[in-house]
Amino acid sequence: MSNPFVVAGGDAAGLSAASKLKREDPDREVIVFEKGRWVSYAHCGQPYYIKGEVEELTDLLSLSPAAIEERGIDLRRSHEVVDVRPDDGVVRVEGPDGAFDQPYGDLLIATGGHAVSEPIAGAALDGVFTIHGMDSAAALRAYLTPPEDVDIEAFDPDTVDIAFVEKYAELTPPESAAIVGGGYVGVEMAEAFSAHGLDVSLFQRPDRLLLPFGEAVGERAAETMRAEGVDLHLSTEVDALVGEDRVTAVDVNGERIPTDVAVVGIGIRPNTDLVGDTGVELGDSGAIAVDDYGRTNVENVSAAGDCAEMRHAVTGEPDWVPLGLTANRAGRAIGQTVAGNPEPVGDIAGTAVVKAFELECGRSGILDHERAREAGFDPVSETVTAGSRSGYYPGNAETTVTLTADRDSGTLLGGAIAGEDRAAIRIDTVATALGDDMTVGEVERLDLAYAPPFSPVWDPVLVAAKVLNGTLED
Amino acid sequence: MSNPFVVAGGDAAGLSAASKLKREDPDREVIVFEKGRWVSYAHCGQPYYIKGEVEELTDLLSLSPAAIEERGIDLRRSHEVVDVRPDDGVVRVEGPDGAFDQPYGDLLIATGGHAVSEPIAGAALDGVFTIHGMDSAAALRAYLTPPEDVDIEAFDPDTVDIAFVEKYAELTPPESAAIVGGGYVGVEMAEAFSAHGLDVSLFQRPDRLLLPFGEAVGERAAETMRAEGVDLHLSTEVDALVGEDRVTAVDVNGERIPTDVAVVGIGIRPNTDLVGDTGVELGDSGAIAVDDYGRTNVENVSAAGDCAEMRHAVTGEPDWVPLGLTANRAGRAIGQTVAGNPEPVGDIAGTAVVKAFELECGRSGILDHERAREAGFDPVSETVTAGSRSGYYPGNAETTVTLTADRDSGTLLGGAIAGEDRAAIRIDTVATALGDDMTVGEVERLDLAYAPPFSPVWDPVLVAAKVLNGTLED
Repeated sequence: MSNPFVVAGGDAAGLSAASKLKREDPDREVIVFEKGRWVSYAHCGQPYYIKGEVEELTDLLSLSPAAIEERGIDLRRSHEVVDVRPDDGVVRVEGPDGAFDQPYGDLLIATGGHAVSEPIAGAALDGVFTIHGMDSAAALRAYLTPPEDVDIEAFDPDTVDIAFVEKYAELTPPESAAIVGGGYVGVEMAEAFSAHGLDVSLFQRPDRLLLPFGEAVGERAAETMRAEGVDLHLSTEVDALVGEDRVTAVDVNGERIPTDVAVVGIGIRPNTDLVGDTGVELGDSGAIAVDDYGRTNVENVSAAGDCAEMRHAVTGEPDWVPLGLTANRAGRAIGQTVAGNPEPVGDIAGTAVVKAFELECGRSGILDHERAREAGFDPVSETVTAGSRSGYYPGNAETTVTLTADRDSGTLLGGAIAGEDRAAIRIDTVATALGDDMTVGEVERLDLAYAPPFSPVWDPVLVAAKVLNGTLED
Repeated sequence: MSNPFVVAGGDAAGLSAASKLKREDPDREVIVFEKGRWVSYAHCGQPYYIKGEVEELTDLLSLSPAAIEERGIDLRRSHEVVDVRPDDGVVRVEGPDGAFDQPYGDLLIATGGHAVSEPIAGAALDGVFTIHGMDSAAALRAYLTPPEDVDIEAFDPDTVDIAFVEKYAELTPPESAAIVGGGYVGVEMAEAFSAHGLDVSLFQRPDRLLLPFGEAVGERAAETMRAEGVDLHLSTEVDALVGEDRVTAVDVNGERIPTDVAVVGIGIRPNTDLVGDTGVELGDSGAIAVDDYGRTNVENVSAAGDCAEMRHAVTGEPDWVPLGLTANRAGRAIGQTVAGNPEPVGDIAGTAVVKAFELECGRSGILDHERAREAGFDPVSETVTAGSRSGYYPGNAETTVTLTADRDSGTLLGGAIAGEDRAAIRIDTVATALGDDMTVGEVERLDLAYAPPFSPVWDPVLVAAKVLNGTLED
């Protein structure tokens, strides 16, 4: 009578769930199928590995396959779950030795997301990368490194696609880079390429960088990028990446701009092919719809991580914001729930932080007015610039804060921040306030930290709350 | 028909109130009496001026007297309010030209606090300083500077006690320092003296440093101080500071330890002499009791800043926590209330942060179990040490977090943090959660920031919440 907990996908959500269940219920059989060879790695760390700030590719692993197996988890890499048959309680799995049916007691779909490169023509050329897989990261770092300095032997052939890495390791390092997209990946990769001395051009279709961070943060990010020498093209659509086999140029506005390497970072989409005709419902976002405990509409089938929706703390509605903490937390909660001790996966606030060279940017909640109106709010925003420390204390830096609130109720809806001195982490004040539906007046009266080396008397978030509250009272 | 807003005390609370009222009601007469010559200066910045990190004494001024008068405030320095006669609606004021009665329409008592040096014998000797006044700061910095490098002319004789500063400027700089007290002042002054190359001894009567920050933070602060070469004497009571005219030694445990300079930082007390027999009531803490709007029990008389109580966010009871943001916020709210647009002064959470060399420490709420039990809670605490960034990212530093909660309700009661990488500012997450009575479970599910350069997937505060929540569920 086999009753295993089966997990499709061996990254943050899947392995958090598997690990938690094994801790709660050590006798339960837990099988994790991962279609690739990499498991439990830090997507978000890839730009810093490529930059060279993180030394080894394996530094990005949270857990090695051996450590996972030590937890009593039956980890099967190079095994892809290709179908779910809920009526029979089995999944169909394709592995190196063929396909087979695997019965499950409980199933977690944690298939993650994939980087989009459509509709950029030429994205399949050699020399064009998306930053969404460890082999790509390894190949790109090898490409940026002089051939004589690349140590192919250091890569573990059990996980790394050695042939792919070798192909780039042998090439003369690129001297110019084109980045398509000005979101997290684009901004972080501009820093990484610059660190290697490349001439960097960044093409962004909208009129500002880091769209979800709002106007003020986007403008500061653009200023920083330009000051760092990035050739920034906003409101600019790339027509195609061109080249014979390998990319050699970007076609944009009728011009052909030469480049040695290109990165496409225009977004990711949830991996939902698996659920196809299984009866598992998708939400409006296109990701898998789940309840407060991460359960899909199909009995004994949960979903978590980049393939699933979560409830937004501000709107109370399902949303899709694929980020690392969300995946870890939802996975962990599902592991506990499957073990018989139900734990909600929690809400998301869409909190995100990103480093653009030395500029720290953060955002949480809902800043976009159109989106806020759709959710039934009457949004009002204010942006301030205030010091990060007492004005007389060395290291004080201008910190820009945008806060958005609902006019009638005064409820805080969202916030964003940018600055060079401890700015990003201050978004946690906003995230925490959003976690409990605080009003802007309540935020204004928060007893936040003050000491000259760390913060001015009025923290920049308090200054913004004060100004926004003044506007709300008018 | 004179109806002025009269303020006793020209520092944070008093001038925030005066400025706010003038903005709201420009025609109202506003008179601020300040018994000294210094107004609107940053107490908290003094150790950094003494250290030399802040160049000029005047850098610590938030507002110059001229700037205050430009706001339309009638500022009278060297004027002390010595009595209040509420029945007549007048205060008695002593100034350079004698005493007089000043009628008031509304009165704010913002007389601040004073550093305690009792019961330390010998605290009145030359060479013994408390860090609670700008003249002391000027004299101590001059003392630490070689005589030939002190520019007495740079001090404004209109404010600085030149004779006092000159006396120390002429002396050979001290080579050793004794600090009595291991709170904020002691910890910050150890850093300041060390920066000048002095041998520093610190004597603390309790068994750990930074008492209000709890055990774990106190221990890390002690480790840091010792690593920085401070000769730390915990559980050690100083019997006396000794010397002929100037301090030359510390008597402790029957031993006489030579020292060239001493600082006494064993606490401050509220300045409440003024209210004496006026009918204005004090609270249990000894500071002036006020309501939600900063009003005392006497009509038209408010109090704010270091002389007044505030309501604690966790206990809902009056408390006395003399800190800068509290004074500024309460003063500002009172200015608005007096202008006819009532604004609550807000609660305090006792949030405080301090730098001990490179160690950043923060605390908020109630950590002390005895205190928690007095307030009717059943306190449970957990302490964790977790990374400040992704483990693979440079700059990741061990961050220690203590969280305390009520066993029955799971409500968060307080927290403390210590670490070398952005630790202090993370206490704002705790302060914000306390501002809305969150449970530890709610804190555990907060959608906080994650990106490798700033925070690990699980922020140290989330790790602590997870562990504490586990304990609560057992």
